[in-house]
Amino acid sequence: MLTLQATQNIINEEIDKINFVKPPELLYLPFQYVLGNGGKRIRPALTILACSLFAEDYKKSVKPAIGLELFHNFTLLHDDIMDKAEIRRNQPTVHKKWNENVAILSGDAMLIEAYKLVCEVDKDILPEAMQLFNTTALEVCEGQQYDMDFENRMDVVVDEYIEMIRLKTSVLIAACLKMGAIIGGADKKSLELLYDFGIQIGLGFQLKDDYLDSFGDPEIFGKKIGGDIIANKKTYLLINALQLANSQQKSDLLTLIQGDFNPELKVERVKTIYKELQLDSLIKNEMQNYYNKATENLESLEIAEDKKEELLRFAKGLIDRNR
Amino acid sequence: MLTLQATQNIINEEIDKINFVKPPELLYLPFQYVLGNGGKRIRPALTILACSLFAEDYKKSVKPAIGLELFHNFTLLHDDIMDKAEIRRNQPTVHKKWNENVAILSGDAMLIEAYKLVCEVDKDILPEAMQLFNTTALEVCEGQQYDMDFENRMDVVVDEYIEMIRLKTSVLIAACLKMGAIIGGADKKSLELLYDFGIQIGLGFQLKDDYLDSFGDPEIFGKKIGGDIIANKKTYLLINALQLANSQQKSDLLTLIQGDFNPELKVERVKTIYKELQLDSLIKNEMQNYYNKATENLESLEIAEDKKEELLRFAKGLIDRNR
Repeated sequence: MLTLQATQNIINEEIDKINFVKPPELLYLPFQYVLGNGGKRIRPALTILACSLFAEDYKKSVKPAIGLELFHNFTLLHDDIMDKAEIRRNQPTVHKKWNENVAILSGDAMLIEAYKLVCEVDKDILPEAMQLFNTTALEVCEGQQYDMDFENRMDVVVDEYIEMIRLKTSVLIAACLKMGAIIGGADKKSLELLYDFGIQIGLGFQLKDDYLDSFGDPEIFGKKIGGDIIANKKTYLLINALQLANSQQKSDLLTLIQGDFNPELKVERVKTIYKELQLDSLIKNEMQNYYNKATENLESLEIAEDKKEELLRFAKGLIDRNR
Repeated sequence: MLTLQATQNIINEEIDKINFVKPPELLYLPFQYVLGNGGKRIRPALTILACSLFAEDYKKSVKPAIGLELFHNFTLLHDDIMDKAEIRRNQPTVHKKWNENVAILSGDAMLIEAYKLVCEVDKDILPEAMQLFNTTALEVCEGQQYDMDFENRMDVVVDEYIEMIRLKTSVLIAACLKMGAIIGGADKKSLELLYDFGIQIGLGFQLKDDYLDSFGDPEIFGKKIGGDIIANKKTYLLINALQLANSQQKSDLLTLIQGDFNPELKVERVKTIYKELQLDSLIKNEMQNYYNKATENLESLEIAEDKKEELLRFAKGLIDRNR
C-alpha cells in the first residue's frame, strides 16, 4: 500500500507529463494554467490511495484520478466566475487572466476531459464508475446552487448548511475514495464504508475551512483572514452566531452584515462576537465529531491495520492543517 | 422503420413525460424552460431514426436521444451567454430570464444530465457510446472556441470556416446518427457511412443558416433578416465576400464592418455586395455539393431503399427549409 505522500508524488509527476495544450489554444491553455499551479491534490491522491488498499497495481487508477482532479478544477473555474473571485492559489482566476467566455468554455471542456479520463477504467466497471461520477457531479452542482441560494437568505439553519457542504464538498471526496476502491476491486460493503468515511472527513475538511477563515494564523494561512466575513458568507460560524446570539449581539451582527463598514473593522467585530459565543470551541468540537465518525467507519472496514492508519493520518491531516 | 415525423412525435411525447424540476429549483427550472420550448429536435429524432434503421426496437435509443438533445441545449445555453444573445426561440435566453450564474450552473448540470441519459445504453456498448460522446462534446467546444477566435480576425479563409462549422455543428449531428446506429447494433462500416452522411448534411444545414440570415423571406424566417451582418459574424457569405470583392467592394465592406451604421442600412448595403458577387448562387451550389456527398455516403450503406429514402428526405428537408 502507498503512503499519501507517495500518491501525491505520483499525481504530480503524472500531471506534469500530460500536455493538455493543443489548438484552439484559448480552450486548452487554462488547463495548464490551473493544473500547473499545484493545489493540494487531495482528491486524486485519495483515488490512488483507495485503489492501493485493494490492489497491488495502483497504476490503473491514475488516469481516472487525474480526471477527478480536473473535475474539481472545473468546479473551481466556474464557481470563481459566479463568486466573482479574482485570486485563486495566489494567481489571477481564469476569468480575470483571460475573460469570462474563456473561463466558461474551457471549464466546459475540462468537465468533458474529466469524463474522458474517468472513462479510462476497465470495461466491466465502466457502468459503475459512470454512475458514481454522474451522480456526484450533479450533486456538486446542487451544492453550489444551494450555496448561492443561501446568499439571499438570513434564515439558513445548521442542518441545511451541513447538507449544502455535503453536496458541494464531501460527495466528491467520498467519490474519489470510492472510485479508487472500485478500480481496486473492493467489495460492496467496503465501497460503502469508504464512501461514508469520505463524507465525514469532507464535512470536517469544510468546517476547518470555515474555522481557518476566522481563526487561522495570518502568517501561516496564506490568505487574508476574514474573507468569508467580509463577503457575508453563510458559514457554519455565521449561521450558528445568528442562532445563538442574544438580542444585542444579533442586532450588532445584522448591522455589521447590512452596513458599509471598513473591512478590517468588520472582521474584528464579527470575530469578537464569534468568540463571545465560543464558536471556536463549538466548531472544533464539531470537527472532532466528524473525525470520530470517520474513524468508526474505518473500524468495520476489512483491510489491514496499517492501511487504516494511513487513512486516519490523512483524515487527521485535513483537520489539523493550518492552511 | 420509423418516419422522421414519427420519431419527432416520439421525442416530443417522451420529453413531455419527464419532470426535470426538483430542488434546488434554480438549477433545474431552466431544463424545463428550454426543453419545454420546442425547437426542431432534429438531433434526438436522428438518433431514434438511425436506431430504427438497424433494430425493430427503437425504444432503447430514446433516453440517449434525449441526452443528446439536452447536450445541444447545454451548448446553446452557454453559447448564448458568450454571444450575449438575448432571445432564443422567441423567448428570453436563460441568462436574461434569470442571470448569468443560473445559466452557467444549470448549463453544467444539463451537460452532466446529458451524460447520465447517454449512459443508459446497454452495458456492452457503453464504452463505444462514451468514446463517441466524449470526443464529440470536446469537438463542439473546440468549434465554439474557433468561432469566437474568428470574431477578432479579418483573414479567416473558407477552409477554416468549414472546419469550424464541422466542429461546432456537424459532428453532433453525425454523432446523433452514429449513436442511434450503435444502439441499433449496426456494423462498423455502416457506422462510418452514417457518420459521414451526418457530417455532410450538418455542413449543408449550417450553410443554409448562413443563407437564410441574408436571403431568407422575412415573413417565413421568423426572425429579423441580417442578424449575422449586423454582428459582423464571419459567415460563409462574409468570408467569401472579403475574398472575392474587388477593391471598391472590399473597401465598402470594411467601412460597413468597422463603421457605426444604421443596422437596416448596413444589412441592405452588405446584401447588395453579396448579390453583386453572386454569393447567393455560390452558397446554394455549395449546399448542393454537401447534399450530393451525403447521398453518395448513403449509396454504399447496406440498408433497404425505403430507409435510405427517409434519410434523404430528412437531408433535403434541412436544405430546403425556409426557417
